Amino acid sequence: MTRLAVYPGSFDPLTRGHLDIIHRAARVFDHVIVTVSNNASKKHVFSVSERLEMLEEAVRGLPNVHVDTFTGLLVDYLKKKKARVLIRGLRVVSDMDYEFQLASFNRRLYKDVETVFLMPDDQYTYLASSMVREIARLGAGADAFVTPYVARKLKLKFGAK
Amino acid sequence: MTRLAVYPGSFDPLTRGHLDIIHRAARVFDHVIVTVSNNASKKHVFSVSERLEMLEEAVRGLPNVHVDTFTGLLVDYLKKKKARVLIRGLRVVSDMDYEFQLASFNRRLYKDVETVFLMPDDQYTYLASSMVREIARLGAGADAFVTPYVARKLKLKFGAK
Amino acid sequence: MTRLAVYPGSFDPLTRGHLDIIHRAARVFDHVIVTVSNNASKKHVFSVSERLEMLEEAVRGLPNVHVDTFTGLLVDYLKKKKARVLIRGLRVVSDMDYEFQLASFNRRLYKDVETVFLMPDDQYTYLASSMVREIARLGAGADAFVTPYVARKLKLKFGAK
Amino acid sequence: MTRLAVYPGSFDPLTRGHLDIIHRAARVFDHVIVTVSNNASKKHVFSVSERLEMLEEAVRGLPNVHVDTFTGLLVDYLKKKKARVLIRGLRVVSDMDYEFQLASFNRRLYKDVETVFLMPDDQYTYLASSMVREIARLGAGADAFVTPYVARKLKLKFGAK
Amino acid sequence: MTRLAVYPGSFDPLTRGHLDIIHRAARVFDHVIVTVSNNASKKHVFSVSERLEMLEEAVRGLPNVHVDTFTGLLVDYLKKKKARVLIRGLRVVSDMDYEFQLASFNRRLYKDVETVFLMPDDQYTYLASSMVREIARLGAGADAFVTPYVARKLKLKFGAK
Amino acid sequence: MTRLAVYPGSFDPLTRGHLDIIHRAARVFDHVIVTVSNNASKKHVFSVSERLEMLEEAVRGLPNVHVDTFTGLLVDYLKKKKARVLIRGLRVVSDMDYEFQLASFNRRLYKDVETVFLMPDDQYTYLASSMVREIARLGAGADAFVTPYVARKLKLKFGAK
Repeated sequence: MTRLAVYPGSFDPLTRGHLDIIHRAARVFDHVIVTVSNNASKKHVFSVSERLEMLEEAVRGLPNVHVDTFTGLLVDYLKKKKARVLIRGLRVVSDMDYEFQLASFNRRLYKDVETVFLMPDDQYTYLASSMVREIARLGAGADAFVTPYVARKLKLKFGAK
Repeated sequence: MTRLAVYPGSFDPLTRGHLDIIHRAARVFDHVIVTVSNNASKKHVFSVSERLEMLEEAVRGLPNVHVDTFTGLLVDYLKKKKARVLIRGLRVVSDMDYEFQLASFNRRLYKDVETVFLMPDDQYTYLASSMVREIARLGAGADAFVTPYVARKLKLKFGAK
Repeated sequence: MTRLAVYPGSFDPLTRGHLDIIHRAARVFDHVIVTVSNNASKKHVFSVSERLEMLEEAVRGLPNVHVDTFTGLLVDYLKKKKARVLIRGLRVVSDMDYEFQLASFNRRLYKDVETVFLMPDDQYTYLASSMVREIARLGAGADAFVTPYVARKLKLKFGAK
Repeated sequence: MTRLAVYPGSFDPLTRGHLDIIHRAARVFDHVIVTVSNNASKKHVFSVSERLEMLEEAVRGLPNVHVDTFTGLLVDYLKKKKARVLIRGLRVVSDMDYEFQLASFNRRLYKDVETVFLMPDDQYTYLASSMVREIARLGAGADAFVTPYVARKLKLKFGAK
Repeated sequence: MTRLAVYPGSFDPLTRGHLDIIHRAARVFDHVIVTVSNNASKKHVFSVSERLEMLEEAVRGLPNVHVDTFTGLLVDYLKKKKARVLIRGLRVVSDMDYEFQLASFNRRLYKDVETVFLMPDDQYTYLASSMVREIARLGAGADAFVTPYVARKLKLKFGAK
Repeated sequence: MTRLAVYPGSFDPLTRGHLDIIHRAARVFDHVIVTVSNNASKKHVFSVSERLEMLEEAVRGLPNVHVDTFTGLLVDYLKKKKARVLIRGLRVVSDMDYEFQLASFNRRLYKDVETVFLMPDDQYTYLASSMVREIARLGAGADAFVTPYVARKLKLKFGAK
């Protein structure tokens, strides 16, 4: 039986922490779809297509990982893809309550879905996209937190210093 | 001595979790007032009168529960009602810090008030109004999370699919 | 209707934090029974009768508070006393998971019981019987943490310095 | 590729919460080994063979789940079984720090191992073996928390009331 | 060697909790700079110059404390001041994840910086600027939470009642 | 003014995480005393003199760090040393409640003492002496978690494999 897992997120931008979770998921499951949520009501720094490009560039070496985007309810997307496994990274305690709320809702909306939580490498425990955006906005290089490709995109977006 | 307790909240919308807390409070205290905070600075999906209707419909079978609304400082409302017990539901750890901040402030503003925390049934641990709004906005039915009456109101508000 | 609440605990020894919760419970409910758990499998510094004496001395001025002890399952004691309200103090986040486990178990063993959580005064947030025992064992005076009566008992137990 | 996952634990005794995690793991992976840790330094209520029997009885209807026991270091057992996925249930925040410590240690001892965290059904959030043992010791029936088979074994162990 | 520490924050407004941390820092380090972050992207109730005045008034009696403001990245400010110690107050668990994210980012951006966390007096555990603003907006006096000077400024800002 | 800080602990055994905190403390303060608590009521794997040796070996290159041991109440030791700063490492949320209890007690026993919390490098977030002892007991090499000197001592203590 082929095991398909879906890893949804905003990836605004993709961080080294996200990438670490993608590599782990790719080792645990046969196929992984990393899917960018296209949620019009939230404001993003990067457009969906920019975020897809970042992901495409980053997963090039992973043959069993594909990149996609979805609109609307995540469980509808999972049904369409016939996927029953949802991947989420879990870093810090304050993540946990929100992630468990999300998993509980998804489970009630689609009882066959199972959320699988993976733990990133210790060095990414405190890495968050929101802080990456904040320091880039203030002019700092983000090379320690993102891939060189994403670091360049951040520099272009916020202007070099 | 008659024991009056006040359960304040946004109830935007009322969930099965809120209703569970109301039933528990109605068993512990002689009278319970469920009061909708009318806070102009926060944006709500449902108007105060819509939220009052939802509550009225839901507590019809509970003779010692009444529904009300308040503007301004909660402790002023408590003084006016001669109520010294404040009910709050406590679900997850991330609630706790915020709720204790609130209880600590209320206690300093009105030293006779006592906040009483109740725990909802386990099945409502991860239920949150914010997620109910989010899934309704994306077109999902919310029947698992709210009463049939509220589910209908959500459908009317966000459009059926 | 008369509202009876039961506040169970080890009280080994009674601290100012416990006493603060007792005063709060006595204002919220008509009658409060503070009951010392007589659990042979746990080791205690003070015997059950010593702990009862500490409580008796401390609640002398509270006419609606009585002191008792129980053996066996707490829910059996509650049924015998026809009490449906259980009081627990909640101080810090690490309390919460354990207290919610306890409340969840009690609720399943006796569905009519309702656990009511009270928050001690801020100055008692970090006060714990285990630390009081530890510092008394090392020879420190515990006056800041317990009543003068309990402080004397601690001194007698561990030897003055 | 066949996906093998190992779910280690004390299972002293097996609870409905453990069983819920086993069913979830059996849907996500091709084969699941539930393995009882045989750790001489910890005291247990049930012997390893009693705990194996409980598990055998419980997983009878799950063709892709097997029961086993291990001594020594978990990562050595995983290597021997050629398993790279470790299953752990995650219930409450206070679990998380300990589980992440464990996962971090296991990852450093065996870099190919990936810990996968699953969330039990909401009704099992506050279910813990330690509390099941405690209430059985005090004479309460544990039917709400364990399978009928385990409930009988608890009654035999602690004496009926 | 002279020890310089920097305590950055929004101080919107300065609370008794902030002031408690400033006094503690002033006892631990030779010089302390309290610096107001001038972050144009965040909305504030008080202007930077109003917040500087509040701080100036409050630290008048502390000869080794100075008040300043900074724009841009905090680590750039620290480098300019040749400061290697960053002070942060830590109150509740929900602070901790955010504060550790911040400390982790700052450490990677400037490896010589060390964040030192101080714990305020127990009575300030649940004191937060956001709640002070909220109650002042609703017309309550904030004297229990801020200095008399700041209380007056809040009254002027939100109108007396 | 010369700044002396005391870092107390069990160090059973000293880990790379402890050592990381020692290095940080040595940069922030003029003098640091690392002091082993000699608490007869707790069982330890290594004797006080073995733990002192481990520390001596590890801090050899740090001229402003000294190693010591204390019996009895920590605050009495601090008074004797005329030290007003206490160093504690803070790793995970479950540390925090315990550490704040300790800091709160110490502050009430000796009002001049200030506890300063330092955060270890991210790679040591989940490192705990208790787990190091556990894996060494089961025969694993602990080189990833302790210095080579301590790893050798663990091997001698628990027997090589």
